[in-house]
Amino acid sequence: MTELILSLDVLDRKQAVSIAEACAPFIDAIKVGYPLVLATGLTIASDLADLALPLIADFKVADIPNTNRLICEAVFSAGFDAVIAHGFVGADAARTCVEVAHKHSGAAYIVTEMSHPGATEFFHGGVAERLAELAVSSRADGIIAPATRPERITRLREIVGSKAIYSPGVGAQGGDIDTVARLVDGVIVGRSIYEAEDPGAEAERFSRIRR
Amino acid sequence: MTELILSLDVLDRKQAVSIAEACAPFIDAIKVGYPLVLATGLTIASDLADLALPLIADFKVADIPNTNRLICEAVFSAGFDAVIAHGFVGADAARTCVEVAHKHSGAAYIVTEMSHPGATEFFHGGVAERLAELAVSSRADGIIAPATRPERITRLREIVGSKAIYSPGVGAQGGDIDTVARLVDGVIVGRSIYEAEDPGAEAERFSRIRR
Repeated sequence: MTELILSLDVLDRKQAVSIAEACAPFIDAIKVGYPLVLATGLTIASDLADLALPLIADFKVADIPNTNRLICEAVFSAGFDAVIAHGFVGADAARTCVEVAHKHSGAAYIVTEMSHPGATEFFHGGVAERLAELAVSSRADGIIAPATRPERITRLREIVGSKAIYSPGVGAQGGDIDTVARLVDGVIVGRSIYEAEDPGAEAERFSRIRR
Repeated sequence: MTELILSLDVLDRKQAVSIAEACAPFIDAIKVGYPLVLATGLTIASDLADLALPLIADFKVADIPNTNRLICEAVFSAGFDAVIAHGFVGADAARTCVEVAHKHSGAAYIVTEMSHPGATEFFHGGVAERLAELAVSSRADGIIAPATRPERITRLREIVGSKAIYSPGVGAQGGDIDTVARLVDGVIVGRSIYEAEDPGAEAERFSRIRR
């Protein structure tokens, strides 16, 4: 079964909770990024806790090891279940995120390649592959790879084997969900759901990939 | 004159304000990262506003363009004067941070290379140089380069010319402040000051680089 993950990139606490509640029966996890957390604080995790869905802090953590540790401690102490970190800052910095996650019985996912056009500039030419190797060697729980480039997901799957691959970039960014759903463990959908007139109905429509 | 920038990486609002007040006469700017903001919210910018020092949000912004835009809008709306962003995510994503900064009459600095050991893995081999070129072409106001590797600062200076270079990694991370101060526009000092028994006295001692 391919999971459906809601990327909850709205900026208002009430709206976030209301969309999450409407979508909850049709999704497997909720991903929250800095724009919402900067608006509400980390307490948004408590507001979403009643839904009993895994909460992923998509903070693309990308600092030195000591700062990464402080960020991840805050994330898991607030009630999140997983964190997304960059690997290009090096194995020591990425491993810190994995260690803090596992200490809290949580998960850490490493970005190997992003979904927007500019991501090709520094992630291609062998870098994404090295980041996937780093995810394996640092015992991360999975990687983030772009739905906008399914051929890249296939290549990265060769490196990470059975580790989870979560994939953003379908819908508004152009990735085709059915193609991607066959290649990954979870598809991350944002704007197509939360900007819909009826987010719950749209989430239900996307949830066909869970079958 | 080389500027002295305080990296205010404590986790408590009252402690942060008290340290900032003690150091204010001897420093040129205050840099705040996610660990403090996750503890206090962006309102920490208002708490520090009375000191009338430039406030730099060291968020190492590293997401897709749309998310970078939302993060930077939150940063400048909260009263920060500058943001630090990664260039590794590509020119479109970095340029978004520069554009939002300039719209708010603020500044954006691009990380070209970090100060910790693992930073060599992905930033060396020509990448930091390309990131410096990206900082120039995207009209960023300066770059971040490591005090732990002064020879790298010299190399990056050739690329960015008169653009500002701010340099973290002196003190606790091992960089020599007098060597670095001759090469850069601003030296960023954190633990050596805020973990000192008398942060104000320590800031005054470091402030010799401003002469």
